[in-house]
Amino acid sequence: MSRVVCFGELLLRMGAPGNELLLQSPRLDVHAGGAEANVGVSLAHFGHDVAMASTVADNPLGAHALGELRRHGVDTRGVRLQADGRMGLYFLTTGAVQRASEVVYDRADSAFALSTAADYDWPTLLQGADWLHLSGVSPALGADVAQATLAAARAARAQGVKVSFDGNFRPKLWQRWGGDAKAILRELFAQADIVFADYRDIEVVLGQPFAQEDVVARVEAAAAAAFAAFPQLQWMACTQRQALSVDHHALGALLIGRDGTRAQAPVRQLQGIIDRIGGGDAFAAGILHGIMRGFDADATVRFGLAAGGLKHSIPGDFNPVSEADVLALVGEERFDVRR
Amino acid sequence: MSRVVCFGELLLRMGAPGNELLLQSPRLDVHAGGAEANVGVSLAHFGHDVAMASTVADNPLGAHALGELRRHGVDTRGVRLQADGRMGLYFLTTGAVQRASEVVYDRADSAFALSTAADYDWPTLLQGADWLHLSGVSPALGADVAQATLAAARAARAQGVKVSFDGNFRPKLWQRWGGDAKAILRELFAQADIVFADYRDIEVVLGQPFAQEDVVARVEAAAAAAFAAFPQLQWMACTQRQALSVDHHALGALLIGRDGTRAQAPVRQLQGIIDRIGGGDAFAAGILHGIMRGFDADATVRFGLAAGGLKHSIPGDFNPVSEADVLALVGEERFDVRR
Amino acid sequence: MSRVVCFGELLLRMGAPGNELLLQSPRLDVHAGGAEANVGVSLAHFGHDVAMASTVADNPLGAHALGELRRHGVDTRGVRLQADGRMGLYFLTTGAVQRASEVVYDRADSAFALSTAADYDWPTLLQGADWLHLSGVSPALGADVAQATLAAARAARAQGVKVSFDGNFRPKLWQRWGGDAKAILRELFAQADIVFADYRDIEVVLGQPFAQEDVVARVEAAAAAAFAAFPQLQWMACTQRQALSVDHHALGALLIGRDGTRAQAPVRQLQGIIDRIGGGDAFAAGILHGIMRGFDADATVRFGLAAGGLKHSIPGDFNPVSEADVLALVGEERFDVRR
Amino acid sequence: MSRVVCFGELLLRMGAPGNELLLQSPRLDVHAGGAEANVGVSLAHFGHDVAMASTVADNPLGAHALGELRRHGVDTRGVRLQADGRMGLYFLTTGAVQRASEVVYDRADSAFALSTAADYDWPTLLQGADWLHLSGVSPALGADVAQATLAAARAARAQGVKVSFDGNFRPKLWQRWGGDAKAILRELFAQADIVFADYRDIEVVLGQPFAQEDVVARVEAAAAAAFAAFPQLQWMACTQRQALSVDHHALGALLIGRDGTRAQAPVRQLQGIIDRIGGGDAFAAGILHGIMRGFDADATVRFGLAAGGLKHSIPGDFNPVSEADVLALVGEERFDVRR
Amino acid sequence: MSRVVCFGELLLRMGAPGNELLLQSPRLDVHAGGAEANVGVSLAHFGHDVAMASTVADNPLGAHALGELRRHGVDTRGVRLQADGRMGLYFLTTGAVQRASEVVYDRADSAFALSTAADYDWPTLLQGADWLHLSGVSPALGADVAQATLAAARAARAQGVKVSFDGNFRPKLWQRWGGDAKAILRELFAQADIVFADYRDIEVVLGQPFAQEDVVARVEAAAAAAFAAFPQLQWMACTQRQALSVDHHALGALLIGRDGTRAQAPVRQLQGIIDRIGGGDAFAAGILHGIMRGFDADATVRFGLAAGGLKHSIPGDFNPVSEADVLALVGEERFDVRR
Amino acid sequence: MSRVVCFGELLLRMGAPGNELLLQSPRLDVHAGGAEANVGVSLAHFGHDVAMASTVADNPLGAHALGELRRHGVDTRGVRLQADGRMGLYFLTTGAVQRASEVVYDRADSAFALSTAADYDWPTLLQGADWLHLSGVSPALGADVAQATLAAARAARAQGVKVSFDGNFRPKLWQRWGGDAKAILRELFAQADIVFADYRDIEVVLGQPFAQEDVVARVEAAAAAAFAAFPQLQWMACTQRQALSVDHHALGALLIGRDGTRAQAPVRQLQGIIDRIGGGDAFAAGILHGIMRGFDADATVRFGLAAGGLKHSIPGDFNPVSEADVLALVGEERFDVRR
Repeated sequence: MSRVVCFGELLLRMGAPGNELLLQSPRLDVHAGGAEANVGVSLAHFGHDVAMASTVADNPLGAHALGELRRHGVDTRGVRLQADGRMGLYFLTTGAVQRASEVVYDRADSAFALSTAADYDWPTLLQGADWLHLSGVSPALGADVAQATLAAARAARAQGVKVSFDGNFRPKLWQRWGGDAKAILRELFAQADIVFADYRDIEVVLGQPFAQEDVVARVEAAAAAAFAAFPQLQWMACTQRQALSVDHHALGALLIGRDGTRAQAPVRQLQGIIDRIGGGDAFAAGILHGIMRGFDADATVRFGLAAGGLKHSIPGDFNPVSEADVLALVGEERFDVRR
Repeated sequence: MSRVVCFGELLLRMGAPGNELLLQSPRLDVHAGGAEANVGVSLAHFGHDVAMASTVADNPLGAHALGELRRHGVDTRGVRLQADGRMGLYFLTTGAVQRASEVVYDRADSAFALSTAADYDWPTLLQGADWLHLSGVSPALGADVAQATLAAARAARAQGVKVSFDGNFRPKLWQRWGGDAKAILRELFAQADIVFADYRDIEVVLGQPFAQEDVVARVEAAAAAAFAAFPQLQWMACTQRQALSVDHHALGALLIGRDGTRAQAPVRQLQGIIDRIGGGDAFAAGILHGIMRGFDADATVRFGLAAGGLKHSIPGDFNPVSEADVLALVGEERFDVRR
Repeated sequence: MSRVVCFGELLLRMGAPGNELLLQSPRLDVHAGGAEANVGVSLAHFGHDVAMASTVADNPLGAHALGELRRHGVDTRGVRLQADGRMGLYFLTTGAVQRASEVVYDRADSAFALSTAADYDWPTLLQGADWLHLSGVSPALGADVAQATLAAARAARAQGVKVSFDGNFRPKLWQRWGGDAKAILRELFAQADIVFADYRDIEVVLGQPFAQEDVVARVEAAAAAAFAAFPQLQWMACTQRQALSVDHHALGALLIGRDGTRAQAPVRQLQGIIDRIGGGDAFAAGILHGIMRGFDADATVRFGLAAGGLKHSIPGDFNPVSEADVLALVGEERFDVRR
Repeated sequence: MSRVVCFGELLLRMGAPGNELLLQSPRLDVHAGGAEANVGVSLAHFGHDVAMASTVADNPLGAHALGELRRHGVDTRGVRLQADGRMGLYFLTTGAVQRASEVVYDRADSAFALSTAADYDWPTLLQGADWLHLSGVSPALGADVAQATLAAARAARAQGVKVSFDGNFRPKLWQRWGGDAKAILRELFAQADIVFADYRDIEVVLGQPFAQEDVVARVEAAAAAAFAAFPQLQWMACTQRQALSVDHHALGALLIGRDGTRAQAPVRQLQGIIDRIGGGDAFAAGILHGIMRGFDADATVRFGLAAGGLKHSIPGDFNPVSEADVLALVGEERFDVRR
Repeated sequence: MSRVVCFGELLLRMGAPGNELLLQSPRLDVHAGGAEANVGVSLAHFGHDVAMASTVADNPLGAHALGELRRHGVDTRGVRLQADGRMGLYFLTTGAVQRASEVVYDRADSAFALSTAADYDWPTLLQGADWLHLSGVSPALGADVAQATLAAARAARAQGVKVSFDGNFRPKLWQRWGGDAKAILRELFAQADIVFADYRDIEVVLGQPFAQEDVVARVEAAAAAAFAAFPQLQWMACTQRQALSVDHHALGALLIGRDGTRAQAPVRQLQGIIDRIGGGDAFAAGILHGIMRGFDADATVRFGLAAGGLKHSIPGDFNPVSEADVLALVGEERFDVRR
Repeated sequence: MSRVVCFGELLLRMGAPGNELLLQSPRLDVHAGGAEANVGVSLAHFGHDVAMASTVADNPLGAHALGELRRHGVDTRGVRLQADGRMGLYFLTTGAVQRASEVVYDRADSAFALSTAADYDWPTLLQGADWLHLSGVSPALGADVAQATLAAARAARAQGVKVSFDGNFRPKLWQRWGGDAKAILRELFAQADIVFADYRDIEVVLGQPFAQEDVVARVEAAAAAAFAAFPQLQWMACTQRQALSVDHHALGALLIGRDGTRAQAPVRQLQGIIDRIGGGDAFAAGILHGIMRGFDADATVRFGLAAGGLKHSIPGDFNPVSEADVLALVGEERFDVRR
């Protein structure tokens, strides 16, 4: 098992119950989340030794986010408490039929978004780590935290810690402060051993379009370009999602290696979706687990897709399933009650 | 935007939670509704200036119904409070799989059902109005309230207010007091500029069967007969619903004009239905909005069907969606999470 | 209508709300159940005079189980209260998408499992009864209760009470105490007038494999062998279930008579399943009702399958639907709201 | 133990959750109740053989009321199901601090209120009964049901069944239909062996004021007058309630016998009241239990008051406590956790 | 009845259920509030014509706050919608026993706090108004909104609209941006016809201590100083609160007029407090109602205190009680159930 | 701060919501607890480094208990997972008014109760520890686990780890298996540096009565006898509880040292109690914290009592309050809302 450090913002989700519209009834269900924390929780449930590095408000909301991470086995001693800070929030309305789910963010000026490179002591935080996991959300939150993210990646590289980077390109966030997404993301891609990205992310960082008719071909071309541009990079993985209706998606996945490996998992029909948020993070965690455990590419991409698929059945941002749970779904599809 | 007055009964729905049987657990979820109020709430969310005319019990139940209307932007100053009156109630069990949803009404002798023509001062209530919306439920509730409904329609016609009438034929209610449904509904059809009705409603009021094999042909024949019988009538609109299972319906729609216009919206597959009640009212509101805004017939019927379709995803009788929400669904079908 | 005595364990289900993982939020929804009680509740709702014979803990949990049976019209005066006993519990996580539902049992050493043949006065308990219903779960719980179950069957036979036996083979339970499942179940099959069993159950009791390619053929061969081995046996019935996904099963049913009768109900597509637990018991109750009421085999198997299908739409272990509810589904499939 | 028949209306309470105002949040918690049913449920929990005679709507609401009675061990086979009838409802807002609880009734024209003397076959319903329990609510509901109530009392007297009558004078109900409360209640008092009544009830039926300064003296004078006027009457019992604040009442009780017995229970301070509804019925059941079991007057009035006091701690109209629970409170006051 | 405009921030309260710690279980109950809105809702329930002037986020949270105001009869057409704005939030843990309730604010940079004087067209907003109600919270939120508040007061004065001002001094908010509380509040006091303030507020604006031993004497001295300093000012009112435990407060009130009037309401013992938030606003609304209706000072202060006392029994920030509800409590204290 | 190891059973509490009777509505609220875990959680919130040693079922119930401990910052790596084990459960009905709360245990044969001395590797588990905390519940659960508890105490003593022992005498548990409570508890007292015990516990272990009239004198005499009998023992602490009603207790506390120190905290009036379970454990944790931090005896006993008092306001078994929270209550009593 590996020791993994995840760096990113912790968010609290405030969701309308069931399929109600937001505040249709005066109640919100709260879940902790955050792209990198979601990956961390999955990896902890797969048996890895996971620590979070972040900044939260020093109030009961921040304490709740940390408590939830600990509940799932993630070490939170590396998380800073910011006096008078605020927690990033998001409000979720879960859709149905032909009404899509909607997220309203309220994360500006959060304690994490206002944190700076100087706030994190990377040599200490990364001590003993095998991997650092980052995503493209963090640098999109502001100039200071972008520098903090770059510092994390550089420190990892310097300390021989492998870097996992999930592109997660969010134009709206970058526009808020006018950050140079291309330059910053490019350096993060350059530091990464593995990236979770599809052709659109590569288009942003390389400034080069991929126009193949077939989506898979576009991804393969993008991967080739990425391997050429970023010599450090060993793996690129992504899902292909087709939203047939609000609660029925078809999900496939692709894992491509610098060495020419190319593994594609058979598409899963995900019907009766309960919660699609965090599906990409669950997939990323599944892929990382396969790589950390030395699964072959085919087993890895199937494990990643099964993990991502399971997430769609679980309320909340986290995917608290075990390796055995995922392997069971990879191995056979038994859909009747288990006793 | 138009000023619209809606006249009809306000009901409180008492629903079993989720898919439980009624009182399987000892709790009821309450929603305000009523066919005409549902239309009014939709039109208010589309931006119109909507007022309700009705009678409610002067107790916390009546106050709740009015409060919910105001919450959705409907003016309730035209609603009478009846001391010692009771509110109409209905109890809903939401079905699943192959068990249909069931409604148990408890609306007899409600404050509205006992109100009379003399209770409503139409010249004042209709002041400044462009439209009056009525339905066939109100006159079915009793002799007095039938006269009140006719008085409303006549007053509107006299004051140059257009009349929208939703047939909503309910044989059980008419039988309770032995009302002459045919004669009363016929006068209401005669006053209307637009009717929401299919061939079965026209059969009732004209006493004439429509036996074409194809449903659409039957509706068209009925429309032709209606236009012939009612010179005031400009539009007739209806949906075609096919309940493939309890939570999967296929819904189409037709809008036919006196001038020969005939617009049909492509059928929508509504899967994973959350709440089908009020779907017809949401459709009617969508059609009225298209006509009030001067959309062409095709855009109007597509807007109406999309509005009606969205309702199936929202708990409760109301359809609190904006014009933009509906247009988004008409324009494209994006079913993944919106951030 | 018949008088039926059901003998077996009462269980309390503690379920995670909605589709949450177990204890994801700190709340459990409680339902009473138990294979034989489920049959009894159905039969009571169909109009029969049903009494339960069992043992429960003499504490609020046992009292709750009895209260729930009485609520559904089952006579509980034949149930023993065991001081310092415990109730059998099971914890349920309801699955979704591709995550199967899971049951965690906590039923060892329950008051029922520790009860002995001497605890039940069968001549009194069976007085006036037409039928005794048993299942293969009870003898699997331990040596003493296995003897109690055999005693019940023998007493019924001796008193001229017909015996209904649901195979319900649970290898894990038998292994716990090393019981001789084959011998004990064989005697229970030998006492039965009707068995709910498929070819796998017959393989266990006869120690003989059925290798026909077609499942129906295998069941028919097993039925033939059972009729040959057990001269008392008149009927064998079973469902064929195909779990296409967690919430979409296809369910068929077969009823075979000693006299060569063979009735098969058309497969029902059960989509959007709410609760699959107790589906087999609901089917058994439907078949028993058909036989008790003298329906022909075809009507009986269709009634049984419709009853079983309805169960999938109802939260909890019980299937509190009336004969009219089931006949309505057999007769026509009306899936829109009933008013 | 005695066999007791209770005759009266079954009501469904729809209460706002916790201390919310009615429909402040859109949910209602449902409890079954009714003055006579409350007494019946208590007596069943004390071990008596209790049957209900009443009329309910033949719909899921009526079925729920019956199911709840059965759950508490009351035989409901004597309850008529009225097709197209409605259930009496009441809506409850539970007060707090200095805001009193409020009841809004919606019980007019219920299936019970519309039932007539001819609907009840008293010889059969009272077969084997030792006691009939009635209250002054039933005759207040309308002329027909008043006759039905009188018929019940006369039949009991004729069959040698003792009559328990709870005065429960409700002027508002009598005014609705202009009934002659004095005459009708007078006959019911005349038939009774025990009445639950204080001096105000006696003032109504005898038309005679009791002006003693001290409340207890007034009650004693009223009892003396009642014993003089009604030769059948053996016992009169009542509580003395002082509402110090919404959730703190002081409750005393008095039991007076024709033979001069006079027992008074020490006042109980009921603080932190959870639910005061049904407190009087719980007291009446406690007194009846003492009399049925042959407790002496002092033990009886203490048992009655302790039973009534316990009710204030239990949500809902029923008081599902055992004889042992009540005796424990009479015997000692142990307020710390029991393990 | 008067027309009243309230200007201030709308907040959403997110509260832990019951007496749980914040996020002890993952759910929040939401209530709309805000000091000035609370006053407005009370006045609307007392029958006045109330309009809100404010700025909210143009998202579902802002829409909810407006919907709740409309539900309570407050006109929200004067509220601006701010694209990309955020709503002020506060998180509430309700205390118990000896653990005090706690508020965590998350209101920085809300759409209202960022609004400026130029955003409000006071001549239009105040058209037809009799009163403008403001509080000291608004100017404490930032320099721009402080100017907006002053502009509102000046415009009211210029248009002949009376000004009601609730001191509500919040040092923490002023410190955040270093605002000159004394100068700004002083001008607001100078514009006011009535102030809700005690001696501590007057100390802040006049920079002068009041050291009388008796609290009432201190308030009277402060009132005298205020009347001397602010010639416009006619009335000063305040409560005296003594928190004996978390859920038992003693509450008195004082109303002092420029003309020497001095009315004091007898202390109310508020035990079993449900929700103390908004108690001061409910009191202010009660006083304003007395003054608007022309009650004498004694009736006014008793009405104000009874209104404030009732608030302690109602969950949420609003006090949706009618004039009759308050008068009933002033007139007599009937704490038993009202039917 | 100290490193503390707690050894004992983890239990899941299943509680009726609010003040309902158990299973009055079909829902249970779940809390993790256990006497020693409660102490551990408190100490972790006070800032200590706490680890749990125990055995739980290797199923979602056991996982939940561990997750809750981790959430509160307790290290769970020393907890064994027992395949096929069961979790100890208890069912709680929270009382009100004069109805006491009731606990129904279902903990027999739990994974912990069946664990043996050989299951715990104490040298490893106690590595680096300053304190081991035990209670008298563990040895009462069975012969094997009694030996395991003794082994823990001996190992601690051998490794120089101080021992804290909470008497917690439970005669019912000892009677179940006929254990020699006196002998086993005596050895545990002999190993302890601090005991939480009152005179009744000392009576059990020393077999000697303490008959002083005054309770405090009895405790002091018992302490003197304990110090004489157990030379290792330095401190004895206990509370004095008087249950005035179900939700009003008066609580005092006493701390006595071998060196003659004797500190008594002023009695706290705990009114409106939310949850009294775990109050003793919260007190013990407070005392331990004072001793670990080197507070003087007076400060320690006040801290302990304030901690114990706070627990009564918090739902669940744990007392997740900080040192600052407790000190705030010791220092002053501010019962109004904190903002």
